[in-house]
Amino acid sequence: MDNLLVLLQKVQNGELDAAEAERAIRALYYSDMEFALVDTHRRSRKGFAEAIYCPGKTTEQIVAIARELRAKTEGNVLATRASAEIFAAVRDAVPEAVYHPLSRLILLPGGRQSERGHILIVSAGTADGPVAEEALVTARAMGNRVTALADAGVAGLHRLLARAELLLSARVIIVVAGMDGALPSVVAGLVPRPVIAVPTSVGYGANFQGLAPLLAMLNSCATGVTVVNIDNGFGAGYAASLINMDRSN
Amino acid sequence: MDNLLVLLQKVQNGELDAAEAERAIRALYYSDMEFALVDTHRRSRKGFAEAIYCPGKTTEQIVAIARELRAKTEGNVLATRASAEIFAAVRDAVPEAVYHPLSRLILLPGGRQSERGHILIVSAGTADGPVAEEALVTARAMGNRVTALADAGVAGLHRLLARAELLLSARVIIVVAGMDGALPSVVAGLVPRPVIAVPTSVGYGANFQGLAPLLAMLNSCATGVTVVNIDNGFGAGYAASLINMDRSN
Amino acid sequence: MDNLLVLLQKVQNGELDAAEAERAIRALYYSDMEFALVDTHRRSRKGFAEAIYCPGKTTEQIVAIARELRAKTEGNVLATRASAEIFAAVRDAVPEAVYHPLSRLILLPGGRQSERGHILIVSAGTADGPVAEEALVTARAMGNRVTALADAGVAGLHRLLARAELLLSARVIIVVAGMDGALPSVVAGLVPRPVIAVPTSVGYGANFQGLAPLLAMLNSCATGVTVVNIDNGFGAGYAASLINMDRSN
Amino acid sequence: MDNLLVLLQKVQNGELDAAEAERAIRALYYSDMEFALVDTHRRSRKGFAEAIYCPGKTTEQIVAIARELRAKTEGNVLATRASAEIFAAVRDAVPEAVYHPLSRLILLPGGRQSERGHILIVSAGTADGPVAEEALVTARAMGNRVTALADAGVAGLHRLLARAELLLSARVIIVVAGMDGALPSVVAGLVPRPVIAVPTSVGYGANFQGLAPLLAMLNSCATGVTVVNIDNGFGAGYAASLINMDRSN
Amino acid sequence: MDNLLVLLQKVQNGELDAAEAERAIRALYYSDMEFALVDTHRRSRKGFAEAIYCPGKTTEQIVAIARELRAKTEGNVLATRASAEIFAAVRDAVPEAVYHPLSRLILLPGGRQSERGHILIVSAGTADGPVAEEALVTARAMGNRVTALADAGVAGLHRLLARAELLLSARVIIVVAGMDGALPSVVAGLVPRPVIAVPTSVGYGANFQGLAPLLAMLNSCATGVTVVNIDNGFGAGYAASLINMDRSN
Amino acid sequence: MDNLLVLLQKVQNGELDAAEAERAIRALYYSDMEFALVDTHRRSRKGFAEAIYCPGKTTEQIVAIARELRAKTEGNVLATRASAEIFAAVRDAVPEAVYHPLSRLILLPGGRQSERGHILIVSAGTADGPVAEEALVTARAMGNRVTALADAGVAGLHRLLARAELLLSARVIIVVAGMDGALPSVVAGLVPRPVIAVPTSVGYGANFQGLAPLLAMLNSCATGVTVVNIDNGFGAGYAASLINMDRSN
Amino acid sequence: MDNLLVLLQKVQNGELDAAEAERAIRALYYSDMEFALVDTHRRSRKGFAEAIYCPGKTTEQIVAIARELRAKTEGNVLATRASAEIFAAVRDAVPEAVYHPLSRLILLPGGRQSERGHILIVSAGTADGPVAEEALVTARAMGNRVTALADAGVAGLHRLLARAELLLSARVIIVVAGMDGALPSVVAGLVPRPVIAVPTSVGYGANFQGLAPLLAMLNSCATGVTVVNIDNGFGAGYAASLINMDRSN
Amino acid sequence: MDNLLVLLQKVQNGELDAAEAERAIRALYYSDMEFALVDTHRRSRKGFAEAIYCPGKTTEQIVAIARELRAKTEGNVLATRASAEIFAAVRDAVPEAVYHPLSRLILLPGGRQSERGHILIVSAGTADGPVAEEALVTARAMGNRVTALADAGVAGLHRLLARAELLLSARVIIVVAGMDGALPSVVAGLVPRPVIAVPTSVGYGANFQGLAPLLAMLNSCATGVTVVNIDNGFGAGYAASLINMDRSN
Repeated sequence: MDNLLVLLQKVQNGELDAAEAERAIRALYYSDMEFALVDTHRRSRKGFAEAIYCPGKTTEQIVAIARELRAKTEGNVLATRASAEIFAAVRDAVPEAVYHPLSRLILLPGGRQSERGHILIVSAGTADGPVAEEALVTARAMGNRVTALADAGVAGLHRLLARAELLLSARVIIVVAGMDGALPSVVAGLVPRPVIAVPTSVGYGANFQGLAPLLAMLNSCATGVTVVNIDNGFGAGYAASLINMDRSN
Repeated sequence: MDNLLVLLQKVQNGELDAAEAERAIRALYYSDMEFALVDTHRRSRKGFAEAIYCPGKTTEQIVAIARELRAKTEGNVLATRASAEIFAAVRDAVPEAVYHPLSRLILLPGGRQSERGHILIVSAGTADGPVAEEALVTARAMGNRVTALADAGVAGLHRLLARAELLLSARVIIVVAGMDGALPSVVAGLVPRPVIAVPTSVGYGANFQGLAPLLAMLNSCATGVTVVNIDNGFGAGYAASLINMDRSN
Repeated sequence: MDNLLVLLQKVQNGELDAAEAERAIRALYYSDMEFALVDTHRRSRKGFAEAIYCPGKTTEQIVAIARELRAKTEGNVLATRASAEIFAAVRDAVPEAVYHPLSRLILLPGGRQSERGHILIVSAGTADGPVAEEALVTARAMGNRVTALADAGVAGLHRLLARAELLLSARVIIVVAGMDGALPSVVAGLVPRPVIAVPTSVGYGANFQGLAPLLAMLNSCATGVTVVNIDNGFGAGYAASLINMDRSN
Repeated sequence: MDNLLVLLQKVQNGELDAAEAERAIRALYYSDMEFALVDTHRRSRKGFAEAIYCPGKTTEQIVAIARELRAKTEGNVLATRASAEIFAAVRDAVPEAVYHPLSRLILLPGGRQSERGHILIVSAGTADGPVAEEALVTARAMGNRVTALADAGVAGLHRLLARAELLLSARVIIVVAGMDGALPSVVAGLVPRPVIAVPTSVGYGANFQGLAPLLAMLNSCATGVTVVNIDNGFGAGYAASLINMDRSN
Repeated sequence: MDNLLVLLQKVQNGELDAAEAERAIRALYYSDMEFALVDTHRRSRKGFAEAIYCPGKTTEQIVAIARELRAKTEGNVLATRASAEIFAAVRDAVPEAVYHPLSRLILLPGGRQSERGHILIVSAGTADGPVAEEALVTARAMGNRVTALADAGVAGLHRLLARAELLLSARVIIVVAGMDGALPSVVAGLVPRPVIAVPTSVGYGANFQGLAPLLAMLNSCATGVTVVNIDNGFGAGYAASLINMDRSN
Repeated sequence: MDNLLVLLQKVQNGELDAAEAERAIRALYYSDMEFALVDTHRRSRKGFAEAIYCPGKTTEQIVAIARELRAKTEGNVLATRASAEIFAAVRDAVPEAVYHPLSRLILLPGGRQSERGHILIVSAGTADGPVAEEALVTARAMGNRVTALADAGVAGLHRLLARAELLLSARVIIVVAGMDGALPSVVAGLVPRPVIAVPTSVGYGANFQGLAPLLAMLNSCATGVTVVNIDNGFGAGYAASLINMDRSN
Repeated sequence: MDNLLVLLQKVQNGELDAAEAERAIRALYYSDMEFALVDTHRRSRKGFAEAIYCPGKTTEQIVAIARELRAKTEGNVLATRASAEIFAAVRDAVPEAVYHPLSRLILLPGGRQSERGHILIVSAGTADGPVAEEALVTARAMGNRVTALADAGVAGLHRLLARAELLLSARVIIVVAGMDGALPSVVAGLVPRPVIAVPTSVGYGANFQGLAPLLAMLNSCATGVTVVNIDNGFGAGYAASLINMDRSN
Repeated sequence: MDNLLVLLQKVQNGELDAAEAERAIRALYYSDMEFALVDTHRRSRKGFAEAIYCPGKTTEQIVAIARELRAKTEGNVLATRASAEIFAAVRDAVPEAVYHPLSRLILLPGGRQSERGHILIVSAGTADGPVAEEALVTARAMGNRVTALADAGVAGLHRLLARAELLLSARVIIVVAGMDGALPSVVAGLVPRPVIAVPTSVGYGANFQGLAPLLAMLNSCATGVTVVNIDNGFGAGYAASLINMDRSN
């Protein structure tokens, strides 16, 4: 976007004619694969390559996009909510691919990134593990130092209070909880850190697949809480990374 | 209900003929006022007189029912969600009536009851005050000893933790909270007492007039929590009283 | 929580140094298993060991937690919503484990507890059986005397009215109902006992998986009704036990 | 609709030419008032004149429609949900108009109809009175004999059971209830009569303006219950009349 | 219920002692099967035996209840939403049982009933067939003459208009529709008959499993429409029968 | 947007330097008023000036935007959902402004546009009048020939069927309906024209402020129906105009 | 419908007697197949044959309807949401049938139609492919020229902006999007064309199976957007065709 | 929280006896005002004083809390959603209080804080102004440098694209939008900054008081978006401040 002025100047200087400039802009920005316009420019713009959301795509489409992203972009690439079958097909195309079965994430590794920050991921119960892992793998893949504290829910509050220093040591805290979604309010009541709350679909009945913790988190009586979609560990890890990465600014 | 056998025996003994028995049962049970069948038997059955839910009734109807209940039943009588106008009209008919403007309760006092138990009412914020007061006045009117702890929400958890003994001293704890509804889970995580959670409509936006704390409370990760309707301080005070009254059984 | 003063005194008396005190508190309170912080202190605090909610946990995690709880806590331990497969794995680790297939509860027995109280569980239909059984096994495991009355729904009200003495003999009544959720109102209209209403997901269409009876129960026109989550027999049994256990206070 | 063949025959016999026939059909069926196509044919087709639903119409429109209906149709005419202001304007145009302030119904009387059947209207609480009255006035206006039994809710079930003969004497029973909406299930469980259940918006919190009793009634565990819209006393009275009117067939 | 006076008289006359009278009442009313209180009195009270709602019951429970009902009650007995497996087990116990696979109804035939009335069942689309059949089999089992008109939805309105006489010939009309639920309004706009509207879960997306037609039907702009639960063909057939059966009163 | 190439060519030809080009683009596109970035380019891009949605804006803001739009853009300008007070203030600033009180639209006339097409607006009831008028005024302001047919709901279907030629004469049909929202399905079943359905908030109870007709319309069983927001007459008139305007292409 | 006058004239002229006229009308309009009233008149009325919505119909019913439509109507015929099994059965009956597995559409080809207009289908992501294809095949089957632009979502806006000319070249634009449903607003903000927005169920958690994009699209801040049901590619293609077909009028 | 060890050491060193320590902790943490436990420790813990949420509190309560906070805490203090009447009363008690009428915020100024960072607040429309202002005043009160860009919604995308540098210059971006809630996705697609999305209740009909943009934002197809409650400008400003304040770490 900010390249507009640059391009206009090149054209003004006669270094580029108008039609060439138009093609150049387009080629820079995406690969047209007919069923997908792969956003190869994403990493320049956002600092991290486009991630592949697998549900609803055919395995062939996923493999083709993974291959294209691996070829046209640097750094780590992620594919989310991938089955073991999809992983097998992706690994045939990109042998260095790694699979995290609990969170169903595929990582296409792209060079070692320096570790920054400190992101803490607190989860309320063991059953919230897959979502917490999705956040953890995502944040690590984006170059952050990440710690996890599992099963620290408010039914046994002492488990959390015993780790006050850990809470304070983080730059950002991701709090993953299902059921009543009470944990982010408690954490945000204790420490002056941004809290990204992730409601999970852990629960039943009037939980309504995560609606109960989602609403609770949006209505947190504590300050500094922002919320992502139900079970969206990826989104929480990504946002935490954007907050943390900028530290050295 | 349990009078069936007694009545059958009276009829069997010839003390009562069948038609008389039928009329006797009916007269015992309610007053027919055309627009209302006032349940004058409620106190025998439930231990407390029928309460008058004011919304949707005309002031004339409320006054007539209050007069009838005062005449036909012993002990305290309550009218809930009454405006100041309604109270003025009721006091004209029943001069000893007392009004609680915050909770909009009218109390028709009916003799001193001994104080039993200990019911604790914890509320999360000052804005939850009207609902907490409704629970408090109700429970006191039913003959319980009641204590209140206001504004002990989880955004400043130390305010609650400082009162651990108070929590433990209660037989039943009513927890009143709006917004995220997190407080009942925290209280129930700390002490082995039945917790009656009352969601309030305090909040805005995705609170949906109390739906958020209602769902959170129904999904409490802590054990021993039961829930009443949004803003239903009366119901919480009543249920707490039924739990507490039976202590001497 | 109430140990704070005690601990401060020990430290004051020189019986304990500050760092030791800190470690002591933590060890007393939970076992850190990385994927879980098992709340071994729960029984001291709540009178009953932490229960294992199985959905969303791997079988390995469940077995490990069961083993840890059995080793570190006394009395009965429950695992809820367990499949037969999970039970098989748990029994390998804890041979005395018992399975209730209808309610999918696993009980790890921990010594005979004296039976107290009288908790009555009334259910509206035969299809409500699994939830009623979950409440029954839970309450029995917590040391209560429990009776069940199945299929007493309001479509044939005489079935309930015929048992009036049974209703009156209970200290607490759990009422389990799906569909219209009308039964708790009827029961609470008859007797002066706390009624814990459990909506079930029995029904279809505009039942919305138990939403209809949940809302009906929250809006009960009868007094003394509190409500737990849809299908939450465990929570109802637990709360009833807390109400009942305290009788001898 | 069934006049199609008749008209075709007239045209065939040369009694009517095609264009005339077309105009004749239209004139028979409605009055075109630009802002309304008043269905003057409604009474022929349905047995009762079109009713005027007042909300959203201007007073001028209501008066004009009332005048047109009074001029072009026989029998009683109703206007529902009318304010006192609207009534004043209608009475200026149609002096014999009668107003029922509780239910906000206007009746334009149109000759005495013989009374048939027996429709019983049971309501759960005094606050349900306006809706019950709307049903009662509607059914009476349509020529039915109607009885009302107010405040017979399930919190004091004996009030209803005492009137078993009354329930049995009706051809159709309308049951009006807010809050938990439990009453229709109880009534339908007792007697072999069609029960039209009318949920009302009486209640608060998780009542959601009548959603709770609406869902409960749709999920009635008793047979023979059908449901109309929240607060729709008019619709219930109308449907009951269609059921009852046909008795002499 | 109306037997109360009779029984009191017998006791008064010394024909029955009180304890005997109590047992007699109970035995008359239900069979206690521990997991079920089979309402053997239902047929006396409602005119038709208790129906067995199969979901949530074990096959063993269904077979036992079917056997008990067949033994203790006269006339047809229905079991709804039964799988083919359940039918196979029921037929082993009650060989004359008949299965309707489309609507998943089991009929235990109980003697020929005279056919009365005329109930018409109109459905909007072929996919509404199972629900329409459930209504049809139920109404026939209850002794009514029933006609069906399938696939007469408003997208091709001429299909319905062509059958105006059929509509008029019915005493009650059941209208079954999914998607937009528009058909009951159209039918009720045409003829002066009670219309029982049955929303079905046919549709997708913003249909929300039948919520869309349910709401549309509750808000019908035509008069005389009452509504049952989504996919509740049984309930519609039952209510239509109660309306129709009484014709000869 | 398509000016990109043109601008690049001017810069390439030396007619414009890069910085000037950047400013030129911005000035062309909007007026920066601090509290608003008035889209003065809207008419070039969409064929009609930006409309002012009044709710939530202060009267001062509305007047300032109206003045700016009148100064910087040609043709008619609309302000929607304006109170009479707002209109008074706008007319002070733009004397030729015209107010439509039923639909609360303000029109700032901007020269006579030729009338094209034929858009028909059918509404179900008189109470739908304000929404229908909003559509009508909008479509006329955009240069279309528009006809209205009010109160043609399905409760009296003959009123619509009598106007079949009118339906066929339209290029696009807007159908406005509240309550059951059945009318668009009926219209779309009759004629091969695009139908834009506008649900209105006319109704009560389970209408949920227009949710019922919205869902019904989204689930129309007839083809060719698309839907706009509840009460969005403006949007329907706008979309109909875009469909109709292109006729001469 | 418009044949009414014609028929009346024939009868008037003695060319047809009334009874014959009645039968003639009916035969012209539909085939009565007992489980279906196939609307063979649909093509005359709407310009395209009735489409077969497969869910909820048995394979036998689908095959019979397909055969009947193929025999009684000209042009292309579509069956939507058909499984591969259904297709196999249909092809046995109608050998020229073609299957589109991604969108699960069956096409019974019926002669080459001239291609008109230009409909553009833009989809936000690769996972929206099946719905986009349903729209594409439908619109092509109805005789339109159609182009597709896949994966142009707002997370990489440049992919869309690069195709501004394509957007402008279309007569109607169908925009298919799940998740946040933001794309239709962006497209409608850019070009003066009717935009038909199709929300898809692509997403998870608070997407609620497409509710999120559906609501977003209904609330579009851009003008000219109308909406169809979630995943309703067929409906969008059909409506776009009605808009486009009329171009030569 | 982290003072536990410190306090234990003081007690260990004999500097403090246990009872004194207990009182000291409590006094440090809150002021007990009976109707409120004012969290005077909030600023030490969170970096900013407790804010007063006004709705549901009496004016007297608000004034008393404001006075207490002003006396016991340093720095700025905020009271949110305050009416002009409340402000008048607060100003009597705290004369330096400042009122922002659009956003209804009261600021009790507490010394100049250095300005850090750069927080950008983009709003979609002029009607979103009050919420944007709430975020702006909050973030400024917390010591941040804040810029606002109003009315940059996606219906005229060029208004946003023209400010690309401004977007890139921010450390955190708050995006405020009602209606379709599409703007956060567009912003987050362009720049690598954390985006805090604030849905507003601007809209009508199927907006459902902000539900539509809330869901859209939770489902953003762009990465780095987190969400706060509807109309929660305060929460967004607070969270942005926590993200921004830490820059110098």
